[in-house]
Amino acid sequence: MTVTPTPATLLSAMQDIVGAGNCLTADADTESYVTDYRRLYKGKAPVVVTPTTTEQVSRVMAWCHANDVPVVPQGGNTSLMGGAVPDDSGTAVVISLKKMHRVLAIDTVNDTMTVEAGVTLSAARAAADEARRLFPLRIGSEGSCQIGGNLSTNAGGTAVLRYGNMRDLVLGIEVVLPDGRVFSSLKGLRKDNTGYDLKHLFIGAEGTLGIITGAVLKLMPQPRSTAVAFVAVQSPAAAVELLGRARALSGGAITAFELISSPALELVLEYLGNIPSPLESRHDWMVLIELTSGIDEETLNGTLMEILEAGLEGGLVVDAAVASSLADVQQFWRIREEISDAQTRTGGSIKCDISVPVSRIAQFTENASAKVLALEPATRMVIYGHMGDGNVHFNPLRPRERDAKSFLAQWYKPVSDLVDGLAHAENGSISAEHGVGVAKRDDLLQYKSSVELELMWQVKRALDPKNLLNPGRLLPDIDAAGKSGA
Amino acid sequence: MTVTPTPATLLSAMQDIVGAGNCLTADADTESYVTDYRRLYKGKAPVVVTPTTTEQVSRVMAWCHANDVPVVPQGGNTSLMGGAVPDDSGTAVVISLKKMHRVLAIDTVNDTMTVEAGVTLSAARAAADEARRLFPLRIGSEGSCQIGGNLSTNAGGTAVLRYGNMRDLVLGIEVVLPDGRVFSSLKGLRKDNTGYDLKHLFIGAEGTLGIITGAVLKLMPQPRSTAVAFVAVQSPAAAVELLGRARALSGGAITAFELISSPALELVLEYLGNIPSPLESRHDWMVLIELTSGIDEETLNGTLMEILEAGLEGGLVVDAAVASSLADVQQFWRIREEISDAQTRTGGSIKCDISVPVSRIAQFTENASAKVLALEPATRMVIYGHMGDGNVHFNPLRPRERDAKSFLAQWYKPVSDLVDGLAHAENGSISAEHGVGVAKRDDLLQYKSSVELELMWQVKRALDPKNLLNPGRLLPDIDAAGKSGA
Repeated sequence: MTVTPTPATLLSAMQDIVGAGNCLTADADTESYVTDYRRLYKGKAPVVVTPTTTEQVSRVMAWCHANDVPVVPQGGNTSLMGGAVPDDSGTAVVISLKKMHRVLAIDTVNDTMTVEAGVTLSAARAAADEARRLFPLRIGSEGSCQIGGNLSTNAGGTAVLRYGNMRDLVLGIEVVLPDGRVFSSLKGLRKDNTGYDLKHLFIGAEGTLGIITGAVLKLMPQPRSTAVAFVAVQSPAAAVELLGRARALSGGAITAFELISSPALELVLEYLGNIPSPLESRHDWMVLIELTSGIDEETLNGTLMEILEAGLEGGLVVDAAVASSLADVQQFWRIREEISDAQTRTGGSIKCDISVPVSRIAQFTENASAKVLALEPATRMVIYGHMGDGNVHFNPLRPRERDAKSFLAQWYKPVSDLVDGLAHAENGSISAEHGVGVAKRDDLLQYKSSVELELMWQVKRALDPKNLLNPGRLLPDIDAAGKSGA
Repeated sequence: MTVTPTPATLLSAMQDIVGAGNCLTADADTESYVTDYRRLYKGKAPVVVTPTTTEQVSRVMAWCHANDVPVVPQGGNTSLMGGAVPDDSGTAVVISLKKMHRVLAIDTVNDTMTVEAGVTLSAARAAADEARRLFPLRIGSEGSCQIGGNLSTNAGGTAVLRYGNMRDLVLGIEVVLPDGRVFSSLKGLRKDNTGYDLKHLFIGAEGTLGIITGAVLKLMPQPRSTAVAFVAVQSPAAAVELLGRARALSGGAITAFELISSPALELVLEYLGNIPSPLESRHDWMVLIELTSGIDEETLNGTLMEILEAGLEGGLVVDAAVASSLADVQQFWRIREEISDAQTRTGGSIKCDISVPVSRIAQFTENASAKVLALEPATRMVIYGHMGDGNVHFNPLRPRERDAKSFLAQWYKPVSDLVDGLAHAENGSISAEHGVGVAKRDDLLQYKSSVELELMWQVKRALDPKNLLNPGRLLPDIDAAGKSGA
């Protein structure tokens, strides 16, 4: 039987491995590592370590494994689900990857970039840009989130329609296993059928199966032209139909197709203060469409006009503003991108990140809106997101005159449950891109089959039999819940 | 302890589950199920069952699990690696999915198609076509290979550059686990971050972890235009450079970029007999380039010409024939597609299916060719494949005057080992798309790290602790080989 090490023993072991300068213990120093981005979860850690090499991560992990010490891996700490901070038992060491932030290699013939896990998304995008390539992942937190975290949560964002999720943007990873062994698949191959593709185990596993320390990312050609329109549509159903036509007409040039509801637009325009709506009149539903391609600007604009004309003729499109300058493009996108911050500033937002098959998104959106408004008629239906992927950020916002705290106290749980239930009924997911963490963990008991939960635990137990890696995150306790264990 | 059931008990149990008409036992009936495509592997099976529903597969699996009977799942039996036929112990039941061949649903708004695993690839492509969509997987065996097998082997082919491998073309699967439980993820979602993405465990696992019984496949827009050229290039290095320019100029329109060596072209022209080379003169190296897009034919042809001109100016391209009719397109492609059959007919081909990073493909090709020719100077260097993915079918062919059997007896092993070793040294894979099966199983001991092999076994033991599913395939015996077990 292993005896839990004393805090002094633990600290001294960590200092031996990573150096005293890479061990934080004072409350003031560890605070930002044990508090989550939304300040909803606050835990404790006897020590936060910031290793600088994979070998150090490996040695920390091996020591913790031998001594039964739990470990919470952390990237940019931008999880919306409490997935990256320790609980308040004070037993888990936090391993921050922030000091492993080197871009190791860029190969513009293989179109790959090899990075350490702590590289921020914006640094990765900038490095690609410098090599005249595109790394296409685009999410709001790009300045602080890290590639390791993007992989561990299979990040999505506004360019998934064209380029896929983070899982689709990586050719290989390096990962430290729960017992300290290192598995590496950093060859940069586009085809390799020599056994199980193990990297997929760790991608989206939220740090419960291993600590990702490096990756080979795919690079894309930089687009030669961009065409953007801000379009008022008749209804969500019309938006779906317009997406279908745009797909058929543009031959894969659609990069983004973002739905925006009227309350979402109003909120962000109020928040931004000094910018006008791209459209003159008020409309219930809008979409932001972006095409990019390697073909010249004129041809691409022609395609965009073709799409809009088809939409107007079919009665799908009510009005449209086409960006005529880079400034327009940036402004249209700014409206879309600031919706999240505008909600945070306003307070009183019930965040539901659901997905359904694209063919059911209109039905879901209309049905769920009606049901929420029946509960609380003055709720502002802030609805936006990646319609092309079937992913909607469905975020009912407190009525103007109502105080955030009382609104959330009354409605957060019943409205979330309602929306999740409706998404599930449409064959959907209760977490399209934000993950599970601790916030949605126990909801999985309701929405996943016993077989799926058992399989997840079979994998977890096989790789982390001591349950030391990010314990209590992602996987609900199926035995306690009475779902049969495997 | 479980007692091995008698043949009569086994047969009667199978007949109870799938019906007598779906149980084959006579040698004449089972022969085609126990003999592999290349007739290199011939095994035995007490019974071949052809279930018609997932529930039957589940019950067969549960019974075999309870009675310790091994099971070999089989699709179209087109494996080149002996991965789909039983060994000659005569203990394993073969489950053929051929009678589960229904297309269950097509959703042209979600752009998905739900199929049973036994649908052939050509039937799946035809069903997509009828719905005016494209299912892009394109491989030689499409008339007989099945979707379940395509998934279990993560099939590749000639359109991977544009659309990815089979893994990238599926949104969800249904799979019967080794103990008969059924795991299903057939929702058709493009985004779902609610836990481990379990489907990736089974894709490419060659039937060792579960039996895939159904899938939701992604559909793509049908291209509106196609432009094809047959191009003589200066060298493999020039081909790689041309690929880079084509990528930059075409904005993702390249669907195929296939390398063809002079001996490969000569062989197939001889084999086809009545068709001329697209190019007037003889050249050492050629590439078949295909662009497809949703834009009009004229624009796409313009892009192709732009690519070829850039190649001519840079001295990369020596000569080019541009397809001016559908007949041309078909003939250019026929030359590429018949290379494999031409080799089979000729006999005496050493098949190596390797991949390396695209940036190392020229170096690998030139180096490996020189080394093989140094061993046996009259060898015909039949080299072709998917250069855009770093995947080369490197298939040295017997000298004209030499008999196939003696050539293979002398050179198969030393040349395969040489080529695999050179690919490995270039950070490559010894099986880019053909998989492992039994043919390459023990080679993994040499080319995979201990950690990777241990991880594969950790997963295998977690899901199939009795080692009943496709035993002896894919996973080498690491204990016998002295590599440390986990």
